[in-house]
Amino acid sequence: MNDQKQLIEKSEKFYRDCIPHISIDTVVFGFNQNELKVLAIKMKFNQQWFLPGGFVRKEEDIDVAAVNILKERAGVSNIFLEEFAVFGKKGRNESHFDDYDDGLWQKQRFISIGYYALVDYVSVSPKADALSEKFDWLEVNSLDRYQITMDHKEIIQKALMTLRERITYKPIGYNLLPEKFTLPELQRLYETILGRTLNRGNFYRKIKNMDILVKLDEQRKGSARKPPDLYSFNKVNYEKALQNGINSW
Amino acid sequence: MNDQKQLIEKSEKFYRDCIPHISIDTVVFGFNQNELKVLAIKMKFNQQWFLPGGFVRKEEDIDVAAVNILKERAGVSNIFLEEFAVFGKKGRNESHFDDYDDGLWQKQRFISIGYYALVDYVSVSPKADALSEKFDWLEVNSLDRYQITMDHKEIIQKALMTLRERITYKPIGYNLLPEKFTLPELQRLYETILGRTLNRGNFYRKIKNMDILVKLDEQRKGSARKPPDLYSFNKVNYEKALQNGINSW
Repeated sequence: MNDQKQLIEKSEKFYRDCIPHISIDTVVFGFNQNELKVLAIKMKFNQQWFLPGGFVRKEEDIDVAAVNILKERAGVSNIFLEEFAVFGKKGRNESHFDDYDDGLWQKQRFISIGYYALVDYVSVSPKADALSEKFDWLEVNSLDRYQITMDHKEIIQKALMTLRERITYKPIGYNLLPEKFTLPELQRLYETILGRTLNRGNFYRKIKNMDILVKLDEQRKGSARKPPDLYSFNKVNYEKALQNGINSW
Repeated sequence: MNDQKQLIEKSEKFYRDCIPHISIDTVVFGFNQNELKVLAIKMKFNQQWFLPGGFVRKEEDIDVAAVNILKERAGVSNIFLEEFAVFGKKGRNESHFDDYDDGLWQKQRFISIGYYALVDYVSVSPKADALSEKFDWLEVNSLDRYQITMDHKEIIQKALMTLRERITYKPIGYNLLPEKFTLPELQRLYETILGRTLNRGNFYRKIKNMDILVKLDEQRKGSARKPPDLYSFNKVNYEKALQNGINSW
């Protein structure tokens, strides 16, 4: 409890340097075991899952605030991070902190700015602080299994829709997949983002025609009878393809 | 000047009901004479062009605030309106109102939420108020010709990039074009949004294959030797095509 008190005192000092009514929530996407996942924190005080979030200092650009929040809360830095939407319904947060120790600051109305990040799953190892029970990765396809706080499920779904819209213009595959991946893994990632199954033959043909993949002289080791080939991205061609939009007009 | 004073008194009263540090700016797109344009206001006090903007009342959802701002400032309602980005650099607005009569409220730091709207050009007839010299439509392809205030040019360009990203998922053509249009007009709209020229044959073939157009038994009257055919959208098929993304995987 002493740790908690210290943290709360520290945060009350911090709040005085922040802009009121504005918060930031981050949706950190990772891809692992053929599933798209988002990073979340289970808070001790109400046992619900929260997105890593925070506030904007009075002298800080919002983009810088988002970088700092991810560094402090989730221990990740140097990652692809982009603002995607604002969540500003009256009443979205005000009643959710009634049982919370941490002063009145949390109970004001917050308009929250959503950022999404794309990380290589294995590079992230967040640590829980004294107020949070644990960090974990929630499967995007199974969000109903978790008690997610406030409108944070809606924030995740909106971030997923943003990936869908930006899939032709942003290096989404490049940032989410490990350096070496199989075509079934790439297809699974696209299917999760697009929210539907794709015809395998068409997908492979389209992807290969783009000239953004390099076939490696390696296979994925495992139990498969015919181990799938490994690929990596040709970064120069990938960036070039993004300029006009992959698979565009 | 009396009108101005009244307006300023009215707005000071209004500010007390608003959330500090948060503003809304709207990018209203219209398509006319083969050009994509945005609605802007020339302000008397500094002779610069502003996007129609405003603030969020303490009891108001941000989406509702955006609707109200467009109704009050630009006289438009019942239109396609969507949030697209946040502009939150420290210093983006604070120094721009030094010569402005209107109290200290305008000089605080504002994080501005951008909304874009798609309107049928002919349906809009905004009226200037006592603080603004006039309303006009600025050509998106010629923004350098205008003295645009603060980061409002950046806001317009980001809105255009958003159209580009959302062109496969949002009824952009449907909302921007008049009920009847020609294929060259549709192609020009796509070219402006995508920021590059498209091959005419490919574009016509793709658009026609989507089964979203209805060819009318009418031609565009004018001086052309061979008057171009008029088309309209088949709304049912258009909405269906958007569900999975027009021209998608």
